[in-house]
Amino acid sequence: MQENEKFLNELLTLKDQIRFGTKFEIPEGVKNVVIAGMGGSGVVGRTFSEMYSGLPVVLVKSYEIPPFVGKETLFICISYSGNTSETLAAFRSARNKGAHIVAITSGGTLSEEAGVVIKVPKGLQPRSAFGYMLMPLLNSFNAVSKEEIEEAYRVLDEIDKDNSSEENIAKEIYKGKFMPVIYGTSPYDSVAYRWSTQFNENSKLLAIWSNFPELDHNNTMALCGQYRKGEFYHICLLANEDPRIMKRIEATQEVAKIKFKSIVEPKGASRLAKVVSLVHMGDYVTYYLAKLLAVDPLDVSAIEELKGRLKGVA
Amino acid sequence: MQENEKFLNELLTLKDQIRFGTKFEIPEGVKNVVIAGMGGSGVVGRTFSEMYSGLPVVLVKSYEIPPFVGKETLFICISYSGNTSETLAAFRSARNKGAHIVAITSGGTLSEEAGVVIKVPKGLQPRSAFGYMLMPLLNSFNAVSKEEIEEAYRVLDEIDKDNSSEENIAKEIYKGKFMPVIYGTSPYDSVAYRWSTQFNENSKLLAIWSNFPELDHNNTMALCGQYRKGEFYHICLLANEDPRIMKRIEATQEVAKIKFKSIVEPKGASRLAKVVSLVHMGDYVTYYLAKLLAVDPLDVSAIEELKGRLKGVA
Repeated sequence: MQENEKFLNELLTLKDQIRFGTKFEIPEGVKNVVIAGMGGSGVVGRTFSEMYSGLPVVLVKSYEIPPFVGKETLFICISYSGNTSETLAAFRSARNKGAHIVAITSGGTLSEEAGVVIKVPKGLQPRSAFGYMLMPLLNSFNAVSKEEIEEAYRVLDEIDKDNSSEENIAKEIYKGKFMPVIYGTSPYDSVAYRWSTQFNENSKLLAIWSNFPELDHNNTMALCGQYRKGEFYHICLLANEDPRIMKRIEATQEVAKIKFKSIVEPKGASRLAKVVSLVHMGDYVTYYLAKLLAVDPLDVSAIEELKGRLKGVA
Repeated sequence: MQENEKFLNELLTLKDQIRFGTKFEIPEGVKNVVIAGMGGSGVVGRTFSEMYSGLPVVLVKSYEIPPFVGKETLFICISYSGNTSETLAAFRSARNKGAHIVAITSGGTLSEEAGVVIKVPKGLQPRSAFGYMLMPLLNSFNAVSKEEIEEAYRVLDEIDKDNSSEENIAKEIYKGKFMPVIYGTSPYDSVAYRWSTQFNENSKLLAIWSNFPELDHNNTMALCGQYRKGEFYHICLLANEDPRIMKRIEATQEVAKIKFKSIVEPKGASRLAKVVSLVHMGDYVTYYLAKLLAVDPLDVSAIEELKGRLKGVA
């Protein structure tokens, strides 16, 4: 299928995206950061908020902005298309309140209306432009070193060259017709969320996600239960290898008398390498699963149709 | 079953919890608020962060605290037991960094070690003490009026008196052996999350949750898909009745050619009444489902066993 190849080519650009160096200046006197963004663009803000916390970072995932937004706020709008209606509405409200505004976008209305614009290359699906949108944030806040960037490049290249274990996870899910359950490790909740949304958009199926240690306070009771037992494929993503988290992963399986089907270890030593390697492994798992299910991983026509119907209304 | 009655008695206390009036003082010079809490205690912080945003509010759901925490931070620790290991670790780090600290707890180590302690009544499951933990936050930040509190009391009382529609939702899920999918409406993501965790703890089953408009950027593709089609029970919680959100709910069903099984409307006019009425309806749905599945809604023995195993380690 030609679509599969096109999608695969998008995945192969991720390593080069990590070297995308455009930066913006952090205005003086900024006391808080707000990041508006939806879907594949929005998840970038989530990831950044977990990797940088020198200032409070608050996420906006709808039309409205919080009342505290004002002159001491750096308001970052992330929209790959530049036309996301929720992000545009949030942007305009923030502008009216005198916030410092930066837009990360490949074009659209946002690139015309925002003062400071970080232009990222066009032509990808928003969810495939994860690196282009993340790196300007990390670079501008000095939250990453050159060595970390090069390590991240290397681990992504490794995954591009050998993703047989990701293919195996997809095969197992396919064979068992399982529901994926993705468990991340705080403070890297965004990686688990990203996997779930890649299952949605690439493989066209719903997935459950949560994070250690939070899930030990609620999900655990469900893991012990009998309801639809055996229908789930538990994937654990070890972004945070804190011994306390590792102990929880072990104890949770013991208490619930289950064994997670897959424990996915990140590659590399730095936070960046760990996060992007886990993200990229999820890209491949969901791509392979799409192939097995004979659905087009690129197709987001329903989302496009929805945007069309809502134009000018919502 | 005696346990069912005991659980029901806990639910019946929620309306009175809303009148719980203890407040704390917001220290001068505070520039940001951080709320640490897990599970049934942590979800209170989520809800508060959606109802108050005069200052940036950042949530902590693990052991570590963000580096920005310092003298300008009001650090609120919510732990019903007062012994939650993640919250205690976060509390100690925040204290070392000179943050202003408030603890909301019924006892335990936190009540002994924290300077400012809001003591809430003992004897409930943490998830049943939602009102006791939420109201001190809303009252202290002047985020709620007396009239709103009385309206919230009335709508909760109504639900306690007639919860037949909640029982019906439980019956439908039970009959179809469905997987619940709960869609909230931003900025009230916490209500959908609360429902999912109540399905975990009360009914002992996993649930999927997301929110409008975010889900239109990813879940929609899964809703259109064929994978396990017909196995889901979609519940939409109308906390935010913004016409743009309402339009999305309609258009999403049209595009995906599905009909949400249940659209749950809140009761009352104020934000507080809407939020707590939806929360309480979820309490009843998951309680009735537990009854139908013949599981004990009170039982959280696996979570307790896990805490025992992790004591002193994590």
